[in-house]
Amino acid sequence: MVTLLIEYVFAVSFISLFAAGLLVSWILRQDQGTKAMQDIASAIKVGAETYLARQYKTISVIAIVFTVLLAIAIRSPTNPWLGVDTAAGFLLGALCSNLAGYIAMYISVRSNIRAARGAMTSLDRALKIAFRGGVVFGLGVVSLSLLGISTLFLIFGGDPLLIVGFGFGASFAALFAQLGGGIFTKAADMSADLVGKVEAGIPEDDPRNPAVIADLVGDNVGDIAGRGADLFESITAENIGAMILGVAPAVYSMFGTNGLLFPLLARGFGLIGTMVGMFFVYSRKKEDPFTSLTRGLVVTGVICAIGFYVLTSVLLNGQMNYFYAALTGIVAAIIVAWITDYYTSYRRRPTLEIANASESGAAPSLATGLAVGMESSGLFIIVIGVAILLAFGLGNGFQSLGSSLNISNPAFQRGIYGTAIATMGMLSVTPMILAMDGFGPITDNAGGILEMSGAAAKAREVSDKLDSVGNTTKALTKGYGVASAALSAFLLFSAFLEVAGLNGVDLARPEVFIGAMIGAMLIFLFSSLAIRAVGRTAAVMIIEIRRQFKAIPGIMKGNALPDYSRCIDISTRAALKNMVWPSLLIVIGPIAVGLVLGSEAVGGLLMIGTIVGVLMALFMNNVGAALDNAKKYIETGSLGGKGSAAHAATVIGDTLGDPLKDTAGPSLHVVVKLLNTITLALAPLFVLALLH
Amino acid sequence: MVTLLIEYVFAVSFISLFAAGLLVSWILRQDQGTKAMQDIASAIKVGAETYLARQYKTISVIAIVFTVLLAIAIRSPTNPWLGVDTAAGFLLGALCSNLAGYIAMYISVRSNIRAARGAMTSLDRALKIAFRGGVVFGLGVVSLSLLGISTLFLIFGGDPLLIVGFGFGASFAALFAQLGGGIFTKAADMSADLVGKVEAGIPEDDPRNPAVIADLVGDNVGDIAGRGADLFESITAENIGAMILGVAPAVYSMFGTNGLLFPLLARGFGLIGTMVGMFFVYSRKKEDPFTSLTRGLVVTGVICAIGFYVLTSVLLNGQMNYFYAALTGIVAAIIVAWITDYYTSYRRRPTLEIANASESGAAPSLATGLAVGMESSGLFIIVIGVAILLAFGLGNGFQSLGSSLNISNPAFQRGIYGTAIATMGMLSVTPMILAMDGFGPITDNAGGILEMSGAAAKAREVSDKLDSVGNTTKALTKGYGVASAALSAFLLFSAFLEVAGLNGVDLARPEVFIGAMIGAMLIFLFSSLAIRAVGRTAAVMIIEIRRQFKAIPGIMKGNALPDYSRCIDISTRAALKNMVWPSLLIVIGPIAVGLVLGSEAVGGLLMIGTIVGVLMALFMNNVGAALDNAKKYIETGSLGGKGSAAHAATVIGDTLGDPLKDTAGPSLHVVVKLLNTITLALAPLFVLALLH
Repeated sequence: MVTLLIEYVFAVSFISLFAAGLLVSWILRQDQGTKAMQDIASAIKVGAETYLARQYKTISVIAIVFTVLLAIAIRSPTNPWLGVDTAAGFLLGALCSNLAGYIAMYISVRSNIRAARGAMTSLDRALKIAFRGGVVFGLGVVSLSLLGISTLFLIFGGDPLLIVGFGFGASFAALFAQLGGGIFTKAADMSADLVGKVEAGIPEDDPRNPAVIADLVGDNVGDIAGRGADLFESITAENIGAMILGVAPAVYSMFGTNGLLFPLLARGFGLIGTMVGMFFVYSRKKEDPFTSLTRGLVVTGVICAIGFYVLTSVLLNGQMNYFYAALTGIVAAIIVAWITDYYTSYRRRPTLEIANASESGAAPSLATGLAVGMESSGLFIIVIGVAILLAFGLGNGFQSLGSSLNISNPAFQRGIYGTAIATMGMLSVTPMILAMDGFGPITDNAGGILEMSGAAAKAREVSDKLDSVGNTTKALTKGYGVASAALSAFLLFSAFLEVAGLNGVDLARPEVFIGAMIGAMLIFLFSSLAIRAVGRTAAVMIIEIRRQFKAIPGIMKGNALPDYSRCIDISTRAALKNMVWPSLLIVIGPIAVGLVLGSEAVGGLLMIGTIVGVLMALFMNNVGAALDNAKKYIETGSLGGKGSAAHAATVIGDTLGDPLKDTAGPSLHVVVKLLNTITLALAPLFVLALLH
Repeated sequence: MVTLLIEYVFAVSFISLFAAGLLVSWILRQDQGTKAMQDIASAIKVGAETYLARQYKTISVIAIVFTVLLAIAIRSPTNPWLGVDTAAGFLLGALCSNLAGYIAMYISVRSNIRAARGAMTSLDRALKIAFRGGVVFGLGVVSLSLLGISTLFLIFGGDPLLIVGFGFGASFAALFAQLGGGIFTKAADMSADLVGKVEAGIPEDDPRNPAVIADLVGDNVGDIAGRGADLFESITAENIGAMILGVAPAVYSMFGTNGLLFPLLARGFGLIGTMVGMFFVYSRKKEDPFTSLTRGLVVTGVICAIGFYVLTSVLLNGQMNYFYAALTGIVAAIIVAWITDYYTSYRRRPTLEIANASESGAAPSLATGLAVGMESSGLFIIVIGVAILLAFGLGNGFQSLGSSLNISNPAFQRGIYGTAIATMGMLSVTPMILAMDGFGPITDNAGGILEMSGAAAKAREVSDKLDSVGNTTKALTKGYGVASAALSAFLLFSAFLEVAGLNGVDLARPEVFIGAMIGAMLIFLFSSLAIRAVGRTAAVMIIEIRRQFKAIPGIMKGNALPDYSRCIDISTRAALKNMVWPSLLIVIGPIAVGLVLGSEAVGGLLMIGTIVGVLMALFMNNVGAALDNAKKYIETGSLGGKGSAAHAATVIGDTLGDPLKDTAGPSLHVVVKLLNTITLALAPLFVLALLH
């Protein structure tokens, strides 16, 4: 039975990779447009490839050091090979993460120009090319994760505890990639805006701006490669956590290895659903592209739900309560998307309030923006809380939550398995979500290419329309990312208790309380460093852009090209330099707390770090998106339109929001999960803590 | 022995009140200056009195409703009178809190004009009047708290558990007062700045600005009356928490009632220290006024330390480890003050970084400001963490922190008593800190009175000098307030476990995790509502100020007076309306969680609410102060000085920082302690929770 199930997982993964390959060849066959367009696209491609190559080199050096340390440091009385196994998994995880990011970038720098050319033909064409580029990304990332886990599962003889190193490696590499990419993209974006738009008065994506190519490269290395690594580690960590909970005695006695493999199989249905759902994304006449994407997502969701029904019937002895737990997760994902839309769309009260406050000046506008960001966490947390409680209850048949209920109790184990399945439900549509997420930066790039090559207004209209849909999907997928992080963290936390042999995490003990405070502090400190890194890099870029405008007078007249590559180089070096320390802080923080204060204190760090991380990520993502959209609202002509004082106020807000929503916020998703995988992988170390 | 000790507490309190009375009569004997000055001061006085009267009416109505509910809802199988006792304590606490705020406002609106007149004579004279106004405030608030607790202690037959209602009432009233005052003062400040400085181009405190009196009233009702209520409940809650821990079996068996009364006696030494230290605050020739204030604080601190030495020798069987625990608290307070200064002073790296970033525009300046605010939490948390761990270890002789250590364990109880004494150490200098805190708004008001009455430049120079010292002391006392909140929260949390009969708070249980998430969410939601309330009130004020400028053309020419009282009235109504819901959210949130999810979930809410509350308070206080000082730095003539683009950028930052540092931030101090006292008082209710 085990072999059969694993074979199914391998088969689906390979079919997905094959489908992705077909899509790649379809995309590559599309027309690439004019020479001017190709020159620009090629500059973007070279910039992105150079950046990633250097980034992966830096990550590899650090990862190899950690691999050696892990192999030496981790010891287990029962398994002398634990350290080496964990280290090997770690290295493979980091490699796969980089590979996932590379695949994502590979296809995006090739889809962008073809989507740009497609926009010259029809909306449908551009939509399909950009979206299918996203699908390659989604299918590739998810099947890579499944293949990695399944292979290690077989090699390590079916013990999910030995795979945790893989998850740690994936999160480790993802944090550097997401942070480095985030710094690169926003430093380029901010400096291009500040000098280009504000000082020189030239429009966005104007070829005269020396930082414009760096800005477009940033979309590929930050939004695409960074997010690819982020979601690769999300699904990997969640799968491993769910598998560990599947071997909890109470669950294992009910379902045997079926319960253990359930997560991998469910993920397989997500791949199938995406391959089918993909065909439902096309643009009918006058249809909003967002509707087309939603149709694809609904089809995928329905297939996933059917998949859960079948899997529950066959593998979980037909205990339909677990099916309902999966549905809970899917519904929670939908509600979260709705909440994100509510707080960031300019058709709704919060963003309109920001726009209205802008009439009194920048400070009231920003104060309202901060208030909206803080408020958005409220409803969100309620949804996640209810989902966890409901799934837990569905898992154990709503047994009393009396005080004897702890991790060693069978009812507790069954309850936690319920929340694990809800998380799987939420994450089942991931490949499709990834496709929608990748769609955004591809169309953004396409628009840039059209603008820079001086394409006809009609094509730019098409790309603008797609770009605005891309902004919406980007905000929604971020909300989805945070929700899945919150849900899977609770799961991984339980897995940590299992592995560390703890019965609970008692906040009343001083060292646990201090661990908790440090967890919250790490989030604040990391966010501070991330935002400041963008600011510092942008400051260097600004000086360079000003220098070029002065040194090459032909630029503004349009008869000399700026030195794009120098801006790319500056961004690259600064991003790589600035990504290292914040990321190491997140890695070393929990290790230090674990070694000094012990595993229960790490539990406190983990839990509070997660809660605060989720809240701050939501806060920063939503502040940024709402401020951005308040500006867009005024640009539609409301409240005086472009050029009004209110518009100037929102431009400040938009620029301030950039590092929050595209650097610090998304990096925090990864931080939350890295905290979980690192503690899971290093739990054997912490029993030797100093203060014990 | 008990009678003797309590008599000492009563005696010191009455002596302090008598000393405060002498100071009041000294202040009232000072000269009040010109008729023009008296007119302005009288307008401020009437505005502040009217506001407080209306505010206390609103608070009273809500408090009476809660008193009745408490009397009905709280039941105990062993004590049929528990509900009535708690309700009576609650009402008295709320009353005393209002009284503390009133005393503070009473003296500040009388000191301001006399300090203004003093500034016309000499720096020493102005300093003494303003500072002694602050001392009245400090002595009054602290002795009121001691008298309330001691009286109830005698009435309720020496059971500290019956006094918790008093702490709840004090926090309850304080939250409304601090939030309402904060909204009033910042809405007036923001709107006066936005229309006056930016639109009409008139300087700060210009009599032509219709909102200028409202702004000055705001200093008295927000910074003075609000902070008075805040610190009244701080020391009250901490005293009660420490007394409850004093009856823990392991502590009681060592010290008997001495351990129980120790907190009150230590507080008494703080009063004595302040009465002595006060005489060391005078201005030597060319001495920086900040040095004068510091001298007074050091004297008070030394007397407190001696007091702890004596008390430990006499009452705690000479166990000097508890004396060292007290010193730990005092030293932690000093380090926290240093950190706050580091992150907010413009002589240091963080604020200079903000000022430098302002040269690139408002967005980089603000992004750096947010980053500085987030970073400031880092060092701070480390200090608090180390202080808790050290004091805990000193309390129980550094016994192993093994996993069997929980609240029912004697070593744990002794350890927690150590942290209680460290908290007392930190809070011992409170009356002096309050005096320094009150000094700020009084000099601010004095400056306003001088400016508006067209006083000579020399007097304004004196008041400006004192005002800038006032800004520093305000920032330091806020840091001190947060530190004491963090430390005393850990203490109150342990007291809650005692009262609720819990052995721990296990975050791995889903309902506790959800409680924890809700705790964090309440902080974010409350902050959002507080910031938005300021924005909304300011928007109404802005319309009114613009209307007056238009309707009364004589205002700008200086031959017609604006309608000050209308602005005060608008601020009053809006502040009262907007303070109710956020405050009720904080009261109802924990009650709802307790009734539905039980006392352990409330424990999670409490703990995480505290950690997140402390971090967010620090973040907002320090962002605001750093942005404010970055502006001041540029106004000294650096980076282009006033009128430069960098200056314009920092003006936006300063205005944005106002609602953060003076409304949301300080209100969060109260929120943190209200969460603690409410759960402590209502613990008997939560055992009946739905999900049990």
